Amino acid sequence: MAKYAEMTKEELQKELEGLREAYKEFQSLNLSLDMSRGKPCREQLDISMGMMDALNSHVDLSCEDGTDCRNYGLLDGIPEAKVLLGDMMENNPANIIIYGNSSLNVMYDTVARAMTHGIMGHTPWCKLDKVKFLCPVPGYDRHFAITEYFGIEMIPVPMSEDGPDMDMVEKLVAEDEAIKGMWCVPKYSNPQGYSYSDETVHRLARLEPAAPDFRIFWDNAYGIHHLYEDKQDYLVEILAECKRAGNPDLVYKFASTSKITFPGSGIACLATSLNNLEDIKKQLKNQTIGHDKVNQLRHVRFFKDIHGMTEHMKKHADIIRPKFEAVEEILDKELGGLDIGSWTMPRGGYFISFDALEGCAKEIVSMAKKAGVKMTDAGATWPYHNDPKDSNIRIAPTFPPIEDLRQATQLFALCVKIVSAEKLLKG
Amino acid sequence: MAKYAEMTKEELQKELEGLREAYKEFQSLNLSLDMSRGKPCREQLDISMGMMDALNSHVDLSCEDGTDCRNYGLLDGIPEAKVLLGDMMENNPANIIIYGNSSLNVMYDTVARAMTHGIMGHTPWCKLDKVKFLCPVPGYDRHFAITEYFGIEMIPVPMSEDGPDMDMVEKLVAEDEAIKGMWCVPKYSNPQGYSYSDETVHRLARLEPAAPDFRIFWDNAYGIHHLYEDKQDYLVEILAECKRAGNPDLVYKFASTSKITFPGSGIACLATSLNNLEDIKKQLKNQTIGHDKVNQLRHVRFFKDIHGMTEHMKKHADIIRPKFEAVEEILDKELGGLDIGSWTMPRGGYFISFDALEGCAKEIVSMAKKAGVKMTDAGATWPYHNDPKDSNIRIAPTFPPIEDLRQATQLFALCVKIVSAEKLLKG
Repeated sequence: MAKYAEMTKEELQKELEGLREAYKEFQSLNLSLDMSRGKPCREQLDISMGMMDALNSHVDLSCEDGTDCRNYGLLDGIPEAKVLLGDMMENNPANIIIYGNSSLNVMYDTVARAMTHGIMGHTPWCKLDKVKFLCPVPGYDRHFAITEYFGIEMIPVPMSEDGPDMDMVEKLVAEDEAIKGMWCVPKYSNPQGYSYSDETVHRLARLEPAAPDFRIFWDNAYGIHHLYEDKQDYLVEILAECKRAGNPDLVYKFASTSKITFPGSGIACLATSLNNLEDIKKQLKNQTIGHDKVNQLRHVRFFKDIHGMTEHMKKHADIIRPKFEAVEEILDKELGGLDIGSWTMPRGGYFISFDALEGCAKEIVSMAKKAGVKMTDAGATWPYHNDPKDSNIRIAPTFPPIEDLRQATQLFALCVKIVSAEKLLKG
Repeated sequence: MAKYAEMTKEELQKELEGLREAYKEFQSLNLSLDMSRGKPCREQLDISMGMMDALNSHVDLSCEDGTDCRNYGLLDGIPEAKVLLGDMMENNPANIIIYGNSSLNVMYDTVARAMTHGIMGHTPWCKLDKVKFLCPVPGYDRHFAITEYFGIEMIPVPMSEDGPDMDMVEKLVAEDEAIKGMWCVPKYSNPQGYSYSDETVHRLARLEPAAPDFRIFWDNAYGIHHLYEDKQDYLVEILAECKRAGNPDLVYKFASTSKITFPGSGIACLATSLNNLEDIKKQLKNQTIGHDKVNQLRHVRFFKDIHGMTEHMKKHADIIRPKFEAVEEILDKELGGLDIGSWTMPRGGYFISFDALEGCAKEIVSMAKKAGVKMTDAGATWPYHNDPKDSNIRIAPTFPPIEDLRQATQLFALCVKIVSAEKLLKG
């Protein structure tokens, strides 16, 4: 099929009529499908059910150092969980705190602590006139929600396949002392699925921020979430790179098992320098006596070690790979060559990012919704829900059954075509 | 035996010599006993081991409303957990949020939120020159640690058997707009084991604070933690009383199952008015997608209902009641009639409170430590660790095995006698 932009007005009008007919047919199906959130599907949850048998009433619930996991104690986690998640994060167990069930909560608390108490003796952010964060775009809406909630000004930084625009990042952090942080999803990024290049990590570790309390919030949410065993992205480990660069305190690194075992019933962790850890624990000891050690033990007993976790991730990949491929296949078939949108083909993570013609994203999502397919709100991938080009849409293929997903993607592609044709006809 | 104060100097000197001999003998035993923290003992943890079998890989992990507890969702908890903990707290499930494993964390977050965002539209506390909390004394050190961490000025309010001095509370909150909160452990209080009288709750619910964003932080940590089935304290339910008084938003109420099932692996909850809940959820949705629903389900499946929980608490009581009675028996035998100390005899909770002669508490705790018995630091029951009379000591009888506990209490009583005699001899 020809590019829409090269069709005559009459050809495009005729095309549009056919598309509208097809849309009506979709509407008559009364669909109710959800491609909006990065949720594992039932089959993915089922592969972790063995974890429910990892502990029972006949098992000794003491951890390696002899602590009874049932009782109070061990503010920063049980030793064997630090080893397992250390291997997962590629960090020394000594640099890790194991938290509760939500790495989002850990990130929120990290910002909240900086607001009320500052970082390593620096002025609490709430006492400053202005605090700013760099936000690679498109990015993760829940990151932006945290910084927005705390009144932190968000500065969008464009993403490429190699990561954020490093010229811009270096310039901004060097010039502006009000820039205190930067959100990063460095591997299989949300929503594009890009992984930061070696050069990007190299340059990030060597940033020279004007603010001594500038920190990179490194949300390595998809560190081991590959789709292909033989086509993995590798990411330079940032804490080690920071240490080599003489910048050991620059990064807070976050991860969790939410998309490895059970979302909401996993364990989260933070890895950072010993200086940062000390600073954090000064606060943490006032906040809690400790996190859920029984659940930490449950995870360790289930996986045994990082190899067990790696094998487990292959099962996830086997379930969701066909879903990613189905979306890509349909987008290619329906939209390929029309020049009305582009999309990413990630090797891991939870999302596909779609860029429509300028000014079309909101209308596409709205049309899909009216025919029963829920997408992530257009704009959600930008700070303040403000995508200036109104073009980015996040596709989350994991949750729906594959037949639903195919149908939803067909409808989505149809909406892209209709909205694009209408736009081109209006000129 | 005669009161120490009525002995002649010679009699007291002779007594002291005998005591010092006994102390030396204790030292030669190389004891290592811990009466410092309110921790359940191993036998108490064992009675909850059935909870480890409540879920397994063959069980459907959906909750009543059909939500798959393994996946994301349900920010405020699963319905059946709200019912169970609603019954535990004597509140409507609609007024409850179920959190993670730590009510201390919920209290911390509640203060932190007020600091950065204020309560129901009022000025964030971090923007005010001065924020103060009323602190009934003696009280819980971890409460005081939170308010101290946030730079909140703490005003001690004396406790009696009926609760805090309400004349003082009413006067202070009416006069001073900087007073934004008050810590309360209203039932089997920490450390005295007192329960607030009906009149106290009645008057608290009718407070007329100058600050519209004043809140009572009602930590009902020991609501169902009775020692005696037939001698229970009953506490007027504060949220209902506040509603009746036309003060529905006055109280945040906290509780958890930490000392019902496993400390650190229980579930925590907050109950409050719908207005307060709405205010809280505006923040909470930025902090997390939800707490550990699988653990909520595990608790509900284990207890089934509040009757199950009540029966469970009798098992706890059977284990720890003899420990409380042993301490009381030894204190009575060793110190009764000497007029050198007084102690509480609670009907529930986790502590016995001991008041030594003025200026003796630190020295008593220090002596006990030197002979291998760890007590809670003297002063810990007061804000800033500053007990102006240096007299209050918290005794935590639950954790040590009963024979250890007897030995530790004997030593403690001996230290009380020595330090008191020395004080009286000095005049």
